[in-house]
Amino acid sequence: MIGLREHVRRMSGYAPGEQINSPGVVKLNTNENPYPPSPRVIEAIQASLTGDNLRRYPQPLGDDFRRAAGQTLGVDPDCILIGNGSDDVLTILTRAFVPEGGLIVAPTPSYSLYNTLAQLQNARFETVAFSEEWTLPEVWPFPDANLTLLANPNSPSGTMLPRASIERLASQLKGPLILDEAYSDFADENGLALLNEVPNLIITRSFSKFYSLAGLRFGFAVTDAATVHQLVKVKDSYNCDLLSLSAATAAILDQDYALANRQRILATRLRLENELPSLGFTLTRSQANFVWCRHPHPVKPMYEALKTQNILIRFMSYLAYGEGLRISVGTDAEIDRLLAALERFL
Amino acid sequence: MIGLREHVRRMSGYAPGEQINSPGVVKLNTNENPYPPSPRVIEAIQASLTGDNLRRYPQPLGDDFRRAAGQTLGVDPDCILIGNGSDDVLTILTRAFVPEGGLIVAPTPSYSLYNTLAQLQNARFETVAFSEEWTLPEVWPFPDANLTLLANPNSPSGTMLPRASIERLASQLKGPLILDEAYSDFADENGLALLNEVPNLIITRSFSKFYSLAGLRFGFAVTDAATVHQLVKVKDSYNCDLLSLSAATAAILDQDYALANRQRILATRLRLENELPSLGFTLTRSQANFVWCRHPHPVKPMYEALKTQNILIRFMSYLAYGEGLRISVGTDAEIDRLLAALERFL
Repeated sequence: MIGLREHVRRMSGYAPGEQINSPGVVKLNTNENPYPPSPRVIEAIQASLTGDNLRRYPQPLGDDFRRAAGQTLGVDPDCILIGNGSDDVLTILTRAFVPEGGLIVAPTPSYSLYNTLAQLQNARFETVAFSEEWTLPEVWPFPDANLTLLANPNSPSGTMLPRASIERLASQLKGPLILDEAYSDFADENGLALLNEVPNLIITRSFSKFYSLAGLRFGFAVTDAATVHQLVKVKDSYNCDLLSLSAATAAILDQDYALANRQRILATRLRLENELPSLGFTLTRSQANFVWCRHPHPVKPMYEALKTQNILIRFMSYLAYGEGLRISVGTDAEIDRLLAALERFL
Repeated sequence: MIGLREHVRRMSGYAPGEQINSPGVVKLNTNENPYPPSPRVIEAIQASLTGDNLRRYPQPLGDDFRRAAGQTLGVDPDCILIGNGSDDVLTILTRAFVPEGGLIVAPTPSYSLYNTLAQLQNARFETVAFSEEWTLPEVWPFPDANLTLLANPNSPSGTMLPRASIERLASQLKGPLILDEAYSDFADENGLALLNEVPNLIITRSFSKFYSLAGLRFGFAVTDAATVHQLVKVKDSYNCDLLSLSAATAAILDQDYALANRQRILATRLRLENELPSLGFTLTRSQANFVWCRHPHPVKPMYEALKTQNILIRFMSYLAYGEGLRISVGTDAEIDRLLAALERFL
């Protein structure tokens, strides 16, 4: 089509993980929760299918969800921005803060979508290398970025930066720091308490992992109310649908259910972390629902061999860092199958 | 928040219609379908609540929906782009075609979101006035626009441009023409057949009106497959969730149901169009599920009086055109209440 912008034509686009949902496939490649969502979520969706709900527009700002989330997280509901997945939230933030030719910065290795967000906005993208111990430089080399993105816990490493590092980084920036907490519900701590102290902090959350709702596309941001008021102008008016709003509201109010699954996932994660070294893998302890591991032998053949046995994990290769495997924490039975297959291969 | 872009701070944002869903309110202000969606839609959503569906990511491109829509509309599934409402599709198109400082053009009076799309992209927005008979100039004054948007049927007028006018307009443009067919399912014709002849045409559709699914946020675009392939890079990877995809697929396959509701809506529309002139209103025949009317007396007091009686319609005021009321076609009982209230007021 004539008129398509050159930078769009040039870019290759974000490649989402393979979504093969045939029965029998052990799917450990996109960090989905191995357990179903809360029964309360199903009830809430079913209750929303009645009356005039489907034919009417949903709440533009998701006020019911914002009240529930505010109460659960101990934040003012006006400080919450709803999104059609945290991808939508990240897109809104990009458009709100980054001009064409602007600068987005993120550590590397990290979530590859950040580069795509920059390409889509026709902005520059610069990375700052994590150290071998997954720490960041004390003096941040890009204080002028329009947006700085930090996944915490990070993907693929599963590691976390401590509170002091985040404060130090934020204090050096002239623009906002986005703390992408898609995995923070599996970690020992999170950044919510920092919001009162760090004025340029925006936290994003996802319902795809902890709440087992990847199929529903729901996420949100937390920052100061004045900024949310501005960001609302950038989002589509009705960016979240009725059913995802109902489901997310029910999910966040049923913390007991999600925390029980978290316990099981952390126990399985520990088992995976304890077994992988005996197969020759090196890894760092994960604070997320996946484990990142490397091996003295090439790992791509391992990924491929597993795939032929219907076990999907994620092979990742980063410039100036190298290769590794990211394995989502599935059920114990799934991890048994994975470990047995790796053992046979090695 | 520091760093928020100045044009975002300056803009006022799109104001969606009031969403007051209390029982007893006659809601004729946002063109929702007065009838519920097909029972097949409810069944499809309920079937999707089982198994691993909710916890897994949905189909990134919506292939099942694209097959169903392709079959129903007689187009190649590869020519279809899915969107989280047609608002999402319009946002994707804006980002794909319009640079900062670029130009978006639309007729006026028309859908006010088009101006918001331009503001958000930090682009210029120019309008071309409809004539008194809702036609457009033969020589189009802005051939260089990055994007030209034409709602057909138009809102608020409900009028349609004939095929020849669309072809003439498209042939004068250096960029794409977006034919926003949110209401075309209620009209006598649509632009799908033009796609083979007009190379710079992109058609957008909504599930909020004809399919009674405003609550679910689903829309799509149809254009050539190569352009869809490019636009996929601009959308969020998983922009449509599992339940809206399942619902939209079921809805588009149940044409009989939607067409039966359409018949009732067109009959009620005709009745509304026949009654309004006896109350002093002037109107043009509508091809959509709403009626646009003007009156020798000021209409804002009418809108306000109706609101105090729990009847919501849309008061609209356009620079260099004037004021009017846009009334969604509700059920016969709702239109009875509206007409009785207007009669009392006048």
